[in-house]
Amino acid sequence: MTDYLPPLPGSAQDETRELRPKFDASGLIAAIAQDAETGEVLMLAWMNAEALARTLESGRATYWSRSRGEIWVKGDTSGNTQEVIEVRVDCDQDAVLLKVRQTGGACHTGRESCFYRIAQAGGLSLADGGEAG
Amino acid sequence: MTDYLPPLPGSAQDETRELRPKFDASGLIAAIAQDAETGEVLMLAWMNAEALARTLESGRATYWSRSRGEIWVKGDTSGNTQEVIEVRVDCDQDAVLLKVRQTGGACHTGRESCFYRIAQAGGLSLADGGEAG
Repeated sequence: MTDYLPPLPGSAQDETRELRPKFDASGLIAAIAQDAETGEVLMLAWMNAEALARTLESGRATYWSRSRGEIWVKGDTSGNTQEVIEVRVDCDQDAVLLKVRQTGGACHTGRESCFYRIAQAGGLSLADGGEAG
Repeated sequence: MTDYLPPLPGSAQDETRELRPKFDASGLIAAIAQDAETGEVLMLAWMNAEALARTLESGRATYWSRSRGEIWVKGDTSGNTQEVIEVRVDCDQDAVLLKVRQTGGACHTGRESCFYRIAQAGGLSLADGGEAG
């Protein structure tokens, strides 16, 4: 099941109770994963229609890997799975927010979150927890 | 100042302490805004190099409006500004996380967050705070 209803025009899209994801020209939608307990933002990834449908059906975060060009069930290789507690869509439905229970680190570097560096005028510095895990 | 260093290959990009944002084919990078106090994810927007530089310099969240094709200082029209407390970049530097102090609602619908609807098999339902503000 990867056939979604099309987006509605204007504010109708903001208020509809129907799932009408707005995929970009590459057929993708941005997906933010947030730790359901701590609120920490863990990563940003991408979903195509199939990844979104499989996430909703399975309760396991499933993305589209742009680099590998394939569906990617988070943790299938690393063991660092994401159990999906809640899925939210934004106003125009071109972004998805997953509240997840994360096993192990979300980042491929071994860190808890991909957002481990703080940007300032002079460059980047490591935030707490920014050492590779 | 909108000339950034180019991304580095492979894991060097993950570990560098230099800001080397990886813009997409349209020259954009995804930017997540998160309430610095509550941890609530407020919105997902886009930045070009100029918007990122202005955000870092001014401490006011500044995006690129894809629909209007222009730089957009959040709150300049609505008054609902975002004071930037911290900027983070992710491992490959193709996404930015802003921790902000939000004035008023972050969403153009008047709601606190753009992510006010929960997606389930049967469609969407309003989360707490999902009534238009």
